[in-house]
Amino acid sequence: MAFLKKDLPKKSENLSDWYNNIVLRAELADYGPAKGTMIYRPYGFAIWELIQKEMDAMIKERGVSNAYFPLFIPESLLKKEEAHVEGFSPELAVVTIGGGEELKEKLIVRPTSETIMYDAYSRWIHSWRDLPLMINQWNNVVRWEKRSYLFLRTTEFLWQEGHTAHATHEEAWEMVEWAMKMYEKVYRDLFAMPGYIGRKSESEKFAGADVTLTYEALMPEGKALQSCTSHDLGQNFSKPFEITYQSDKGVNEYAWQTSWGLSTRSIGGMIMAHGDDGGLRLPPRLAPIQVIILPIKVSEELIATAKDIGDDLKKAGIRTLVDAADNETIGFRINKWELKGVPLRLEIGPKELEKRVITVVRRDTGEKTQLPIKGLEKSIAEMLDAIQANIFAEAERFLKENTHATTDYKTFKEVMKKSRGFISAPWCENAVCEAKIKEETKASTRCVPLDGREEDGSCIACNNPAKLRWYFAQSY
Amino acid sequence: MAFLKKDLPKKSENLSDWYNNIVLRAELADYGPAKGTMIYRPYGFAIWELIQKEMDAMIKERGVSNAYFPLFIPESLLKKEEAHVEGFSPELAVVTIGGGEELKEKLIVRPTSETIMYDAYSRWIHSWRDLPLMINQWNNVVRWEKRSYLFLRTTEFLWQEGHTAHATHEEAWEMVEWAMKMYEKVYRDLFAMPGYIGRKSESEKFAGADVTLTYEALMPEGKALQSCTSHDLGQNFSKPFEITYQSDKGVNEYAWQTSWGLSTRSIGGMIMAHGDDGGLRLPPRLAPIQVIILPIKVSEELIATAKDIGDDLKKAGIRTLVDAADNETIGFRINKWELKGVPLRLEIGPKELEKRVITVVRRDTGEKTQLPIKGLEKSIAEMLDAIQANIFAEAERFLKENTHATTDYKTFKEVMKKSRGFISAPWCENAVCEAKIKEETKASTRCVPLDGREEDGSCIACNNPAKLRWYFAQSY
Repeated sequence: MAFLKKDLPKKSENLSDWYNNIVLRAELADYGPAKGTMIYRPYGFAIWELIQKEMDAMIKERGVSNAYFPLFIPESLLKKEEAHVEGFSPELAVVTIGGGEELKEKLIVRPTSETIMYDAYSRWIHSWRDLPLMINQWNNVVRWEKRSYLFLRTTEFLWQEGHTAHATHEEAWEMVEWAMKMYEKVYRDLFAMPGYIGRKSESEKFAGADVTLTYEALMPEGKALQSCTSHDLGQNFSKPFEITYQSDKGVNEYAWQTSWGLSTRSIGGMIMAHGDDGGLRLPPRLAPIQVIILPIKVSEELIATAKDIGDDLKKAGIRTLVDAADNETIGFRINKWELKGVPLRLEIGPKELEKRVITVVRRDTGEKTQLPIKGLEKSIAEMLDAIQANIFAEAERFLKENTHATTDYKTFKEVMKKSRGFISAPWCENAVCEAKIKEETKASTRCVPLDGREEDGSCIACNNPAKLRWYFAQSY
Repeated sequence: MAFLKKDLPKKSENLSDWYNNIVLRAELADYGPAKGTMIYRPYGFAIWELIQKEMDAMIKERGVSNAYFPLFIPESLLKKEEAHVEGFSPELAVVTIGGGEELKEKLIVRPTSETIMYDAYSRWIHSWRDLPLMINQWNNVVRWEKRSYLFLRTTEFLWQEGHTAHATHEEAWEMVEWAMKMYEKVYRDLFAMPGYIGRKSESEKFAGADVTLTYEALMPEGKALQSCTSHDLGQNFSKPFEITYQSDKGVNEYAWQTSWGLSTRSIGGMIMAHGDDGGLRLPPRLAPIQVIILPIKVSEELIATAKDIGDDLKKAGIRTLVDAADNETIGFRINKWELKGVPLRLEIGPKELEKRVITVVRRDTGEKTQLPIKGLEKSIAEMLDAIQANIFAEAERFLKENTHATTDYKTFKEVMKKSRGFISAPWCENAVCEAKIKEETKASTRCVPLDGREEDGSCIACNNPAKLRWYFAQSY
């Protein structure tokens, strides 16, 4: 049985072994047959469906419509924006044969959809009345990876990509910020993952963007995870793609554009951030099963009561499952659902039945209590909220404890050698220093906060003037 | 303005011209840059989202879970089931370059997911306790097309594909039938499209199936549209993929499998079946906008009232939009929303405002009535139901009127030359006769009803004994 906890690597001892084991044993995902690909198994995909449901509503609420653009991008189209094609070239999967014949023009399997969407935008946009044009896609994209890491780095992954065109830069920038605020809400409220928001450096920004905003979360071994991005594309695409509109003054203008995406990589971050030696710990809002009910032995009466309780919880909108497998001991079943990270476990045995109570065990703290069966829905709903809040608080504490600040390169190096985490430090924004720091400490610039206060600092690497403090960290 | 009705081809005069114009002008879809591909624009994609929402609930209700399998299938895997690879070979798109390097093994862009899913099933299924395994995917698939037809025949399309494995053939067959019944419900209740259900002939069945069930709808020019299929795969895949389970008696057995799919082709069928010379006629249950409210001129008071009415309807769960575009005449707006097939149009002018009534126009019949604004939600909901029922009734009448029965080949030929439609006729089930009939009449076998009564007939082509009457039709 793949989900047994036997021989499960310890999270603190070997994070990546632990991670792979958890993902496979909890049946979240499996490896695909082609190198670098993965299968999203039902339990893992259900998490993505919960994310989609919440985000889709927020995206539509903002007036953005869903659509679907083709998977295949003719090579010539991808090449229209120079920085863009340069950035993506090494990662492309290319179709050269179609319907049994060598193709005249190669087709690129989309690594992202800017080029194919903006080709259409140029046909659809004529006047200021056609703006803003705001479209989102939920789809699959391909970026070639030699070494895959389930959820975190795979050749094919699932995501949403929003693409908007506006009449003014101001309006486009509002959209860029709106998207990042939406992501922040999703990360904090659903994933229970705090993080730092800011602007990427020139060398780390999206290929084709003027400005890239990022959400950077912290993983247990002190590495940062770029968790999603939102790009101000300026007129970098509207010019080569000729996306122009006639303004209300009758003048032809280029549109201002944005794009923003969040992928299934986020699920990998969540597994890593919250899991423990016992397995997953899913935040209740993203748990496909929020409550597992276990009759402690095979007895008709216990099972019937478990099912009644389950029905009541389901009616109250709580995702509940009863596991009365007759071929598994209670110990085995406890371990299984602990490994699968179900936030609350309800155990019912003869003693409980007699007293009309149920034993409730929290996955996050291991805390055990007994609650009367009557009115259980309300107390369970409250406990789920408490778990969600506690998991977030733990992660926030961890982030704070592992965020350092220094103006001194020696300290910087020491921290990166020992505990890692984020370091806030002044940097002159010269790519040479950025590369030197990365080489010497493995830490790259993660972002500079949007509200960062300017000061008369000096760059930790070269001592030249540095106005802003950037977040540095080692990263995935 | 692309959506103007000016120069719109007449449906009765040139169906395919009419169809392409409607799809483009109503902004349902657009052509993609790579040959044979299409863009699902927001208005068209919203229809797919409505279909997904309803079907997804039905599929989950049956205990089937959603998951996601990789896009890329290694060539060797696709080749494991002989009939399957033979059937799909001419339609494949092939990735030969990844990450800048020639691949050692070519990757096929999935035309369907049997092989990649069953490779995983063979790892996941061990005991009878792992069965049934029931997984569904909503994804994109690629089948190379030289000549594309928006929605109806494109190189890439969207669909759902359900894939189940069972311990017995009986149980698998139940699933095959359940899926077709689910599709029937979807086609009749949502699409308002009646059709014939039955088994495909040996030459028309799915590559790799023992039995294929199909839903065949009738298009305006008398051609059949294969609208979705459900396959009994027997053990054809479980044997080469070694999907075995230990039965409760401890014996190793091969699993019994099914697969079933419905694609965005269905939307093309619906457009064709219900549209008229004025444009689309969307059945209310699949209309992204069910009610359009038009203030007949730009006046603050009219617009405010229109918005109030719109809010009330939205609160009642009716998908409503107010169009008060100040740069379009009322005539233009009426034509636009007629073209876009919105089931009900509400017009409000000064006279209506005075009498506290609203003018309601049905898209299906053109019927005009006035209704009091007070309590409008209830009458609008009833009218939407009536439109849904009427569109279905019209289609059913058309299907009946164009379904013929004959035992005589001469009549058969005449019907296929003149009015076309379905013809029910005895056939000996020999592929030679099937091919001959197709060559001489362009009609292929569509299906044989599952409850077809056996009789002592003789084949219309060769006069040899023919026990069952098959449906024949020309098709897409």
